[in-house]
Amino acid sequence: MKLTILFGGASFEHEISIVSAITLKEKLAGFDLKFVFCDSDHTFYLIEPAKMKAVTFSKGAYKKMPLLTLAQGSFVQKSMFSKIQHNNIVLNLIHGADGEDGTIAALFDFYSVKYIGPRVDACIFSYDKRYTKYLCEAIGVKYVKYEIIHKNEHCNITIPYPFIVKPASLGSSIGVSVVKDESELDYALDVAFEFDDTLIVEPFLEGVKEYNLAGYYANGTMHYSIVEEPKKEEFLDFEKKYMDFSRSEQVLQADVSEELTLRLKTNFEKVYQGLFEGALIRCDFFVFNNEVLLNEINPIPGSMANYLFEDFTASLEELASSLPHSKRPKVTYDYIHSISQAKGK
Amino acid sequence: MKLTILFGGASFEHEISIVSAITLKEKLAGFDLKFVFCDSDHTFYLIEPAKMKAVTFSKGAYKKMPLLTLAQGSFVQKSMFSKIQHNNIVLNLIHGADGEDGTIAALFDFYSVKYIGPRVDACIFSYDKRYTKYLCEAIGVKYVKYEIIHKNEHCNITIPYPFIVKPASLGSSIGVSVVKDESELDYALDVAFEFDDTLIVEPFLEGVKEYNLAGYYANGTMHYSIVEEPKKEEFLDFEKKYMDFSRSEQVLQADVSEELTLRLKTNFEKVYQGLFEGALIRCDFFVFNNEVLLNEINPIPGSMANYLFEDFTASLEELASSLPHSKRPKVTYDYIHSISQAKGK
Repeated sequence: MKLTILFGGASFEHEISIVSAITLKEKLAGFDLKFVFCDSDHTFYLIEPAKMKAVTFSKGAYKKMPLLTLAQGSFVQKSMFSKIQHNNIVLNLIHGADGEDGTIAALFDFYSVKYIGPRVDACIFSYDKRYTKYLCEAIGVKYVKYEIIHKNEHCNITIPYPFIVKPASLGSSIGVSVVKDESELDYALDVAFEFDDTLIVEPFLEGVKEYNLAGYYANGTMHYSIVEEPKKEEFLDFEKKYMDFSRSEQVLQADVSEELTLRLKTNFEKVYQGLFEGALIRCDFFVFNNEVLLNEINPIPGSMANYLFEDFTASLEELASSLPHSKRPKVTYDYIHSISQAKGK
Repeated sequence: MKLTILFGGASFEHEISIVSAITLKEKLAGFDLKFVFCDSDHTFYLIEPAKMKAVTFSKGAYKKMPLLTLAQGSFVQKSMFSKIQHNNIVLNLIHGADGEDGTIAALFDFYSVKYIGPRVDACIFSYDKRYTKYLCEAIGVKYVKYEIIHKNEHCNITIPYPFIVKPASLGSSIGVSVVKDESELDYALDVAFEFDDTLIVEPFLEGVKEYNLAGYYANGTMHYSIVEEPKKEEFLDFEKKYMDFSRSEQVLQADVSEELTLRLKTNFEKVYQGLFEGALIRCDFFVFNNEVLLNEINPIPGSMANYLFEDFTASLEELASSLPHSKRPKVTYDYIHSISQAKGK
C-alpha cells in the first residue's frame, strides 16, 4: 500500500512524533512509504526514507530536502521546470498541537487530502481534557471528576490531597504532577502552567487499575486491539513515555475477564461512534470501585499503538480503505438569481 | 483601519456570505478594505471593491480576478515577476461550513494570519447544535431539551407534537421545520436530512420570547450590543433570513427590564469566556417560564450583527486591536540529543 506519513509539527510533542515515524517506518516495511516533515515554522519537507533518523531533524539536515506545499488533492513539490504531486493517503502522525488540535485535519479537509486521523471535531473533544469530560457527560461515559484552574485566577482546589495536576491540552504526560500535599502545589502549578493556561485537577485514585484499548471503524464495524494493562509506575514521566513511542513489539493481552473487556469495548464505541471515524485511536481507561472510567482519548497514539494489534499492517490497510467521505456542499446562486429577477436587474 | 474581508466558502450559506460582505462594504466605508472570495472549489480570489456585487459571483466573473494562495503570515498574489503579500487582519465572514466549522480558523492559525472570528474550538461548540448543548450543560447555561436522530437509524422521537426538526450543523434556518403532527414528519425529516446526517428535535415552545444579544471581548472587558427582540413570525424561512443578512440600519433596544438584560449578559459571558475570544458573536436566547435558555450561538452573525451596535466601526476596531495571541510552542531536540548521547552516537 502507498502511504505518506506526516510527522513533526509545532508541538511540545515534536520529538516523539519523529520517534513515532521512525518506528512506523520499520513496522510498515512492506508499504510504499513517503515521509513529510512539518517543521516548527510550519514548512513541509519531503524526507528521503533513508534519512529517517533522529539526527536528520535535530541537526537541521532536513532543511536541504525538497519543500512541499499544499494544493487541492495533494502535497506539491515544485522545481524550476516541474511540479510533482504527492497524493497518497496521508497518515497524520503529528502528536499534540497541530496534529491533535484539529489544525492538520482542517488543512486536509480544506485541500481535499485523504487522511487517516481524527477529524476536526474529534480533535477538539480529545485534545482538551475538559472537552473530553463534556463529551463523556453528554454520551453517558463515566469519567474522573475534576476541577479547573485558570492562569492568573485565584486557585481554589476543593479536591483533597493527593491529587493530579495536568495541563488541559497536552498528552504524553508533559507537565503532569502528582501533588501529595500543599508543599508540592506551587511547583506543580508552575510546571503545568508552562504548557497551558488552563489546568485540570483530578483526585489521585489509590489502587486504580489502568487498561488501554485501541480501535477503529472500518467496513461497517468496530475493530479492537487487545487490552493492555500498561506498566504500573506511580507516574510515567516524559522521558519514559518518550521511549514508549518507539514500541513495535506486540504486547500480551492483559489478564482481564471477558465481561470487563466487553465493558471497555462498549465504552470505547460510545466515545468513537459518530465522531472518530477515519482515525485509529487509543482510549485509556481506569477501573476503580468496579466502575469503568474514561481517563483520556489518544486520537493519534504513539506509533499508532501498533504493538496492540495482532496484524497492524492489515488493520491500517483496512482503515485506509474505509475513510469517511467529506461532503462539500454544492453552491448555487438560486437566491441571488431570484432576488436579481425580482429587482428587475 | 485596514481590513480584509473573507467571504464565500463551500457552504450552503455561500450566497448569504456574499450578501453579508456587500453589506459590510457599505457599513465600513471609512475602512481601507480588501475583499477575498473563497469559491466552492476552495480557490481564493482578490475582488476589486468596485466589483463587490452579487452578479460578479453568480455569473462567474470573479474567475478573471487575481488568484491568491496562503503563505506564512498572509495571502499572496503571484504574477510572472512579482509577489504581493496581503497581510491585513482578516475578518472571517464565511457563514456556515468552512467559516464556522473551524476550517478557516485552523488555516489561519497554521499560516499565522491574524483574524477576527471564532477559533477552532469555538467553532466546534457553535457549529453543531448538539455540541452547543454539551457546552451549556458543562458551564451551567440552560438550553432547550432535545433528542438526536441519525440518518438510516430508527427514528424514535418522544417529544410531543408540535416540535422543531433541524439539521445539527446549519444556521440561517436552512432545513428547519415546525412539525405540528405526524402527517408532517416524514417531509420535515427528508428536508433536514438533505443538509446533515444528524438532526436535532426540540419541543416547539408556545409563547416563547426571543432575544438576540451580540458582544465581544476586548481590552480586558466584555462589550455588548443592545438587546433585540427579533420580529415574531412563526418561522423565519431562508429567503426572509437571507434579506436579514443585508441589514445595516441600527435597530431599537427591545423593551426588556434591566434585570433581564443582566441575566442575558451573564449567560452570554459564561458562553463566551475562555472560548470565543477574538470573535464578535451573537447569542440567540429564549425566555420561557421566566427562564433564560440559550437557543443558538452565531459565531459569525449575518453582516456581523452591525445593526445591533451603536458604533459598529469603533467596535470592530476595538476587537481588531485585542485579538488573542497564538502561542506556537518552541521546538527543541533535547530528548533526541540526550538519547543520542546515551547511545554514544
